[in-house]
Amino acid sequence: MKLCKVIGFATASLKVEGFSPYKMVIVKSINDHGSPVGDPFLAIDTFGAGLSEVVAVVTGAPATNALADKGLPVDAAVIGLLDHISINKKEIYSRHKEG
Amino acid sequence: MKLCKVIGFATASLKVEGFSPYKMVIVKSINDHGSPVGDPFLAIDTFGAGLSEVVAVVTGAPATNALADKGLPVDAAVIGLLDHISINKKEIYSRHKEG
Amino acid sequence: MKLCKVIGFATASLKVEGFSPYKMVIVKSINDHGSPVGDPFLAIDTFGAGLSEVVAVVTGAPATNALADKGLPVDAAVIGLLDHISINKKEIYSRHKEG
Amino acid sequence: MKLCKVIGFATASLKVEGFSPYKMVIVKSINDHGSPVGDPFLAIDTFGAGLSEVVAVVTGAPATNALADKGLPVDAAVIGLLDHISINKKEIYSRHKEG
Amino acid sequence: MKLCKVIGFATASLKVEGFSPYKMVIVKSINDHGSPVGDPFLAIDTFGAGLSEVVAVVTGAPATNALADKGLPVDAAVIGLLDHISINKKEIYSRHKEG
Repeated sequence: MKLCKVIGFATASLKVEGFSPYKMVIVKSINDHGSPVGDPFLAIDTFGAGLSEVVAVVTGAPATNALADKGLPVDAAVIGLLDHISINKKEIYSRHKEG
Repeated sequence: MKLCKVIGFATASLKVEGFSPYKMVIVKSINDHGSPVGDPFLAIDTFGAGLSEVVAVVTGAPATNALADKGLPVDAAVIGLLDHISINKKEIYSRHKEG
Repeated sequence: MKLCKVIGFATASLKVEGFSPYKMVIVKSINDHGSPVGDPFLAIDTFGAGLSEVVAVVTGAPATNALADKGLPVDAAVIGLLDHISINKKEIYSRHKEG
Repeated sequence: MKLCKVIGFATASLKVEGFSPYKMVIVKSINDHGSPVGDPFLAIDTFGAGLSEVVAVVTGAPATNALADKGLPVDAAVIGLLDHISINKKEIYSRHKEG
Repeated sequence: MKLCKVIGFATASLKVEGFSPYKMVIVKSINDHGSPVGDPFLAIDTFGAGLSEVVAVVTGAPATNALADKGLPVDAAVIGLLDHISINKKEIYSRHKEG
């Protein structure tokens, strides 16, 4: 799963059937220091993640397992809001401190 | 899902069975500023996306879920035309403004 | 699907069961100008693509859908020979011109 | 499978159903010299891997095969603790020496 | 499939059930000149590939098709030992010459 920071939001009025109940967040992977890197991508979010929150995102075919309807064309979904991340014994993120 | 800009089109007269009803668009991922980056790739498009429109593209095995025939050899499909994209509270794309 | 140029060929006498009927081409993704970029990879080709032809290649699990035997360990297959590719309204490839 | 070094840990109180029994480690791919490179990612770990241990990580859809519940939205799982790694006949990692 | 050079070997005494009969090789993708590039990764090898041999490696979910037990958590497997590789009509690898 990718460690991602929520950096934005997107809306679509024209979309495939079955997507309407879901919110899409724009995320980026984070590096060792918790900074977003690389290109942004879209993930389905059922947790209500807010801007700047760090989340775990499952990508590829297993992302379909995160939703009730397993037949949706989905390749990325938030599977959890992270509370604490430590890298080499140093805390690089704490949800409550940042929130 | 990738945030992609439609940058072109491709046609093929010799192709695998079952592909004939589908149009192929050439897309590129966009960066934080909405500019296309990286290498172009092909996606099946059932939405009639026009040049320069920003779309959500599902990649990998779940792309087969976007089409009526789930047994097609497809690894990328447009799943929606995006209306608004905001990154860090700044609007970087609005379909109607650009269209 | 990737937009790829055929850059070579490979043969294998020792290979997994079921591969014998298939030819393997070596391809590379192309950039906006039609030039091959990145690392070469192998794709199963049932279209008889020739050197320098531009093809659509499906990758990952959906590649198995391109062959009659869906249980083969295949992650890339040519799904069509491209005729025309236009990027930003400029034709970057035409099969008959180059052939 | 990726050759990865465990570089940290993450916890999540809000997560998808079925994840509670599993521990998540943060890993990075290693290069020829055994040094971690690239962006960190999360993997489910059922082996109790410790900080700095080198593990084999399966990614993508097959990661779901590593767990008892194959329907979980998981795209990376530790499948083994590596004992010895030799590259070009030179040992670059030995579990007992480092542990 | 990736064109890979075998660059090393790894052993694991603690690993998921079902892996014991299989040998793991460490491979790297090769470039146009046959030189290994990028980060090393692990592939299951049932062909007994030796150091420096060039092999075809299937990655992702289809790798599970290369083994008798299709339910193993495997994302890379050698599917053949390559005999000859030509890129732009130039032979860049011949198994017997190098072996």
